[in-house]
Formats: sequence, C-alpha cells, structure tokens
Amino acid sequence: MTQFNESELTEAVIKSFDNTPNPRAKFLLQELVKSLHDYVSKTNLTFEEWDYAIDFLTRTGHKCTDTRQEFILLSDVLGVSMLVDAVNHRDREGATETTVLGPFYVGEHTVTPHGADISPHNLTGEKMFVQSCVMDINGKPLAGVPVDVWHADDDGLYDSQKPNYDSVGASGRARFITDADGRFTFRTILPCSYPIPTDGPVGEMIVKTNRHPMRPAHVHFLVNAKGHEPLITHVFISGDKYLDSDVVFGVKDELVAKVEKRSDAATPDGKEVAAPWHLMTYEFHLKPGGGLAPKPLGVKAEEPA
Amino acid sequence: MTQFNESELTEAVIKSFDNTPNPRAKFLLQELVKSLHDYVSKTNLTFEEWDYAIDFLTRTGHKCTDTRQEFILLSDVLGVSMLVDAVNHRDREGATETTVLGPFYVGEHTVTPHGADISPHNLTGEKMFVQSCVMDINGKPLAGVPVDVWHADDDGLYDSQKPNYDSVGASGRARFITDADGRFTFRTILPCSYPIPTDGPVGEMIVKTNRHPMRPAHVHFLVNAKGHEPLITHVFISGDKYLDSDVVFGVKDELVAKVEKRSDAATPDGKEVAAPWHLMTYEFHLKPGGGLAPKPLGVKAEEPA
Repeated sequence: MTQFNESELTEAVIKSFDNTPNPRAKFLLQELVKSLHDYVSKTNLTFEEWDYAIDFLTRTGHKCTDTRQEFILLSDVLGVSMLVDAVNHRDREGATETTVLGPFYVGEHTVTPHGADISPHNLTGEKMFVQSCVMDINGKPLAGVPVDVWHADDDGLYDSQKPNYDSVGASGRARFITDADGRFTFRTILPCSYPIPTDGPVGEMIVKTNRHPMRPAHVHFLVNAKGHEPLITHVFISGDKYLDSDVVFGVKDELVAKVEKRSDAATPDGKEVAAPWHLMTYEFHLKPGGGLAPKPLGVKAEEPA
Repeated sequence: MTQFNESELTEAVIKSFDNTPNPRAKFLLQELVKSLHDYVSKTNLTFEEWDYAIDFLTRTGHKCTDTRQEFILLSDVLGVSMLVDAVNHRDREGATETTVLGPFYVGEHTVTPHGADISPHNLTGEKMFVQSCVMDINGKPLAGVPVDVWHADDDGLYDSQKPNYDSVGASGRARFITDADGRFTFRTILPCSYPIPTDGPVGEMIVKTNRHPMRPAHVHFLVNAKGHEPLITHVFISGDKYLDSDVVFGVKDELVAKVEKRSDAATPDGKEVAAPWHLMTYEFHLKPGGGLAPKPLGVKAEEPA
C-alpha cells in the first residue's frame, strides 16, 4: 500500500522523521508537519495560493543579503519574533524588558569614547544626549560591559540600508563600554518614527493588507555582560504617535523613556549644545545567567547563488 | 496600554489584519498567525531555534534560481505539496490521480513528433517505448491536447540541473500533441530511482534526520486539455524499491504502470530497437472543468539581488 488519504498522509510524514537522532529536532519537525498540514486542511489551500506562498518565500529569500534580513522582518510583522521573545522571557525578576532584535543588527560596532557624537552623517535633527547605566537586578553597577547601540536617521533609514554604507561605514551605530559605575553617555539626534522597508515582499504584504508600516521612534540596545543574560531591547521615545500600533508589536510600557526637551546651553558632561536639545535617561537591569548574544547578519547566511 | 502578554499578542497580530480588503487573504493571514503562534507557544521555541529557522529559510531562498526551486522541494518533503494536491482533488470521478508537480518543471517544452526519441543526451540506459492516450472520464479520446513530459536521466538528474543546460537545452523533456484518437508515443530510456538534490538546505535536513532522499523511478506528465482540469501527475515504474517510501510521498497505486520488459526487434510503431527494451502503456482520463496549468519556474520569481 503506497497511497494515503489526507490523515494517513500526515501520519506518514510525521513517521518519516521517527529516526531523527536529536530528540528536540524530531519534536520540532513533527510538530511543524502537524501544524503545516492542519493549516492546509483547515484552509483548503488552493494551488494558486500555494504557488503564491512559494513565490512569496522565494522573493523574501532573494531580498536577504549580508545587510538586509527580510525573513526576520517577516517574523517581526507577524508577531512571531515578539512571541519567541515572550516565551523565552516569562519571568524577568525585575530585569529590563526585552524586545525584538530587528533586521538591522549588522555587528560592525566600534568601541567609541563616552560622550561621543554618533549622529548619522550629514543629517539634521534636534540633538539628543543619552545618559545611561547598566546594573544587575539588585542595582549593583556593572563595569566594563559592552553596549551596542543603533538607531535610524531622520529619514528613517539605518546606515546599513544606504547604498554608500560600504564606503561611509557605521553611522548612528556604536559600542560603548560601561565605566566603573556602570555608566555610559553619548550624543546623537532625536530619532523619529519610520516605516519598515516597503520595497520587498514583506512591505508589499503590509501595504496590501491596509496595515501601516510604521515603528515608533526608538534606539536599539544590546547589552552583553558576563554572568548575565544578553539583553536585547529598544528604548522608545515617549509621546510617539505609533507607540500603540508598532508594526512589529515591539513596544512594552517599561521601555518607553521620558525624553526631556531642554534649552540649557550645555549637556550634563559640560559640552556646549544648540537648543533645543533632548535628554534621554534610562537604566538597564540585567538578569543573572548566560547565553550567547545573537549573531550579526551575514555571519551564517550563504551568498545568493 | 501598549504591551501584550502571550495570548494578547496573538490577538493583536490577528486584529492587525482586520482591514485586509480581500476576505480570503484576510482569512489565510489570520489563520497563518494563529498557526505560527500556536507552534511557537507549544514548542517554547528558543532563540537559537528561531535563528536556525531564519537561516534555513534564507539559505533555501538563496538556493532558488530560474531552474531550481528549493522551496517547492521543502514543501514536497514535508508532504505539504501532496496535501494541497489531496484537498484540491477530493473527488476524482474516475479521472486519473494527480501527484506533485516537483521542482523541475521549467516550461521550455518544445512540440516534438510522435515516436521521437527524447533520451537524455550522451547517456546510456535501456530503451523504453511509451504508448499513451488522453481521454475524458467517459473514455472519449481527446485530440490536439498538449502533453508535457519530463524525466530524470540515468544519473538521476533532470536536464535543468546540469551546468551545461543553457547550451545543450532540453533533454528527457518534450511536448507531444495528441492525434485524432487522443494518442501519442515517444521513446526514451527507462528511468531509474534517484535522490532529490542533497546539496541544499532541504537535502541537508533529509540527511540529518536519517530519512533517505530517494524517489521511485517515474515520468512526469502535465496534460492540459481545453474544457478539462489540467492533470499534473507522474507515471511510476512497477517494481521500484522506493515505491513505498517516496521522499515526497507522491506515489498513488493507480499511477504505478506495469512496464513490460521486451526482446522483440521493433517497437509497436515498427522501428528497430535493441533488446532488451521496455514498453510502458498508460491511459490518462481528464476531469471536466477548467483552471490554469502551473506557471513554469522562473516566470514570476525575481532575480537574486
């Protein structure tokens, strides 16, 4: 007997993975088969729809490069990234909340002196001074901790999205090392809300389904201290109109920072600044533990053929 | 309130698609969100596993070219393609059973005279003569019907998988037009069982999970008659050792043809042939209806960036 009716087919595919040596891989694959088959049966998926899905996945793959990750974007806009984040961070024990990594962590962050201006090149925007510190969950400062920072420019683009990225290099992107008191500071411009890229299949889906493509203004932080869980998060700017409808569902109340509008002539480190400027103050609390920080883009993926 | 617990998150993502204009697209997307979120929650998917999935999908996309479709292969080995086939062909009403299109339909089939030898170039193998006809479900012959045929060579490769495909062109691949009696004939070599490509992420999964990568020997047929449903199927060679464990779950009993081993000096059309040779006889019965034949590879997908 070689042929199957619908339920026999699903059972046969599940059984085909019975000899998978790794028990977790076996579980994940067999559950994947159940889930995919349930979806096809429940929706009575047509050939045209299947064909559309194959084409959509192929175009999504072809959009991925060393500096662009369209599959992460797809996972983000379907809320899958935030759900993976949620199931892996069920108990924060007072540590700072986490959110999505996003598709623009490219891992070329250069250690930069405290107070340095990392504003995107050649761009205008009101200045922002960021003062922050890294502590454990008991409030003890953590020294010597690398903190990767990245944010979009006034046009809503990350440095890695620009055609001249290879020649210009990092911009709005740096690594700081906390001092003996766990502190670090930098200056940049006040980020603004921006759309996810809409020139690929994921953006096309957002447009066709009448969703808006906007993310509320934020700065990304990746804090990676020895003996603690790597913290992947954003700090959002209070008052942004998209805080309630982030296209990637990444906002958490605790991650919204009050950013003060200031008119003093100097930032807290005594340097001159043109008014008005903005002061962001935010503290990070790390949970004890270990684990690897995420690999930056381009490290594992093969080049397009 | 901007943040969600796990079930609120799923509801928020489902709701984000509420304004999708096309009701079927809305249904498919909202069910997709439920299905993906159920999977992540049920499996407690880790970041490393999510990262592996993103990388796997990216590599799968990068393997896709105009002549190779790794996502169709993925759908095939997970039994999804056969299930889509099943839910769309629940009542055959006596028509020939369908099976997967497979990833090697490249749509460059040239109309070829009856009786022509379409054997793959420069390859050995015992000769096979195929005599076939196309009828409706009442046994009435259908004249002037295009029938696309494709099969692998003795090394288990399709013409389109070979590096010299652009210069050599179609091989083991042709289109025949049925005559007034619905008949067509051709000669080729007896196909053999062969592995799916194992040099990509899908093949890697098959190997790592201790599945075998083999498909039983078969010839692909795509029969596309006016006023009838396009028939996408294979005819399998009886006796093949992989009929019970096809890696893509594509076998149906009715599609296994008895292929006779012969030692006569001529094929049924009177032409000389070296013994031993093989005679495949198979009739196709088409269901009334309409619908589009599948688009060949490369027609819709964008080029890699």
